[in-house]
Amino acid sequence: MRLYDYPVAPNCRRVRIFLAEKGVSVPSQMIDLSMQEQLSSAYRAINPRCTVPALQLDDGTLITEVLAIWRYFEETDPEPPLLGRDAKDKALVTMWERRMELDGFLPGMDAVRNFLRSLKSRALTGPRDYEQIPELIERGKMRLADFFQDLDGHLSHSPFVAGAEFTAADITGFVALDFVAGRLKLPIPDDQIHLRRWSERVAARPSFQL
Amino acid sequence: MRLYDYPVAPNCRRVRIFLAEKGVSVPSQMIDLSMQEQLSSAYRAINPRCTVPALQLDDGTLITEVLAIWRYFEETDPEPPLLGRDAKDKALVTMWERRMELDGFLPGMDAVRNFLRSLKSRALTGPRDYEQIPELIERGKMRLADFFQDLDGHLSHSPFVAGAEFTAADITGFVALDFVAGRLKLPIPDDQIHLRRWSERVAARPSFQL
Repeated sequence: MRLYDYPVAPNCRRVRIFLAEKGVSVPSQMIDLSMQEQLSSAYRAINPRCTVPALQLDDGTLITEVLAIWRYFEETDPEPPLLGRDAKDKALVTMWERRMELDGFLPGMDAVRNFLRSLKSRALTGPRDYEQIPELIERGKMRLADFFQDLDGHLSHSPFVAGAEFTAADITGFVALDFVAGRLKLPIPDDQIHLRRWSERVAARPSFQL
Repeated sequence: MRLYDYPVAPNCRRVRIFLAEKGVSVPSQMIDLSMQEQLSSAYRAINPRCTVPALQLDDGTLITEVLAIWRYFEETDPEPPLLGRDAKDKALVTMWERRMELDGFLPGMDAVRNFLRSLKSRALTGPRDYEQIPELIERGKMRLADFFQDLDGHLSHSPFVAGAEFTAADITGFVALDFVAGRLKLPIPDDQIHLRRWSERVAARPSFQL
């Protein structure tokens, strides 16, 4: 088994944190996105989708997409559950994790990928080039401000994103927030005390040092 | 239990097909998107996210997001499994379903929602208005052409999207294709025989008449 990984990529971080919370160790190989190694013919032969993270199983099967890699390890290493315990809880974790992605992670990626000069013609991940669309920078930032505010309100009555326990929804929420805060210099506003409390609590977990 | 539904909305269709494949019947209530009923104060009180589909459980819990509603019924009504059987299979279904969404469904929504006059200021679903970005129409169409071509290639060696069995990945793939073909008048090109064969086979299932 091998995990194709790149330390700086937020989607890779989502997988590393998940594995650390499970206590699972997987040999990894770095694909250097700063050198566009994901577009090399060698990596294309492994993953024609040209993305990281990607997990290769011992039988050669390649699993791409964070949610799919998470699902694999949730099934093989169920404890502690990070995708929910019973039917209702699993549905709520799925819902909250997705909201963190749709409302936080994707607008953040829009704002960053359409802004950075180094990603000119690389506005979307994958094997094909797409030009940047400058309007998505401003829209991304507007949506992120709403995301911060909405999440602060939600966390005023919920210890973690999906309820009483730490789950994958916290991973996506925090990685989105941290990536955005760093790249776009959008810190948590002073009055969003619930978001700040949650953020500090999550950031202190050993898995988040990865 | 109650499902908030709107017949024309492609995300609602993904849920209806899933339930029909499971043989599960849920009382539904129509939220008329053509009258912007999702933005009414009555529906906001139920679902502040202002989206359909949404599933209300008997204890009052509201579950939004297609993947979350699917997950609920996959747990309560496991047969037939639509999200995979074992760890590897579940990961592969998750991966393929997500590719259908990222590569087909989302570009299709981009192209449609940024194009229709009736959706001016409603380029994104949810409680807040966002202006249309015309560049996303053309990009959406380019990406859809790639989606058709990639999926045709994949289906040349796979009976269904995620392998030998019908799964949720076929639902998202077909609904994206059908919605796009109808709204954007982008039919399957004549030479994409594998995509056509799969599309006809899936469309003939009773659940897809819904």
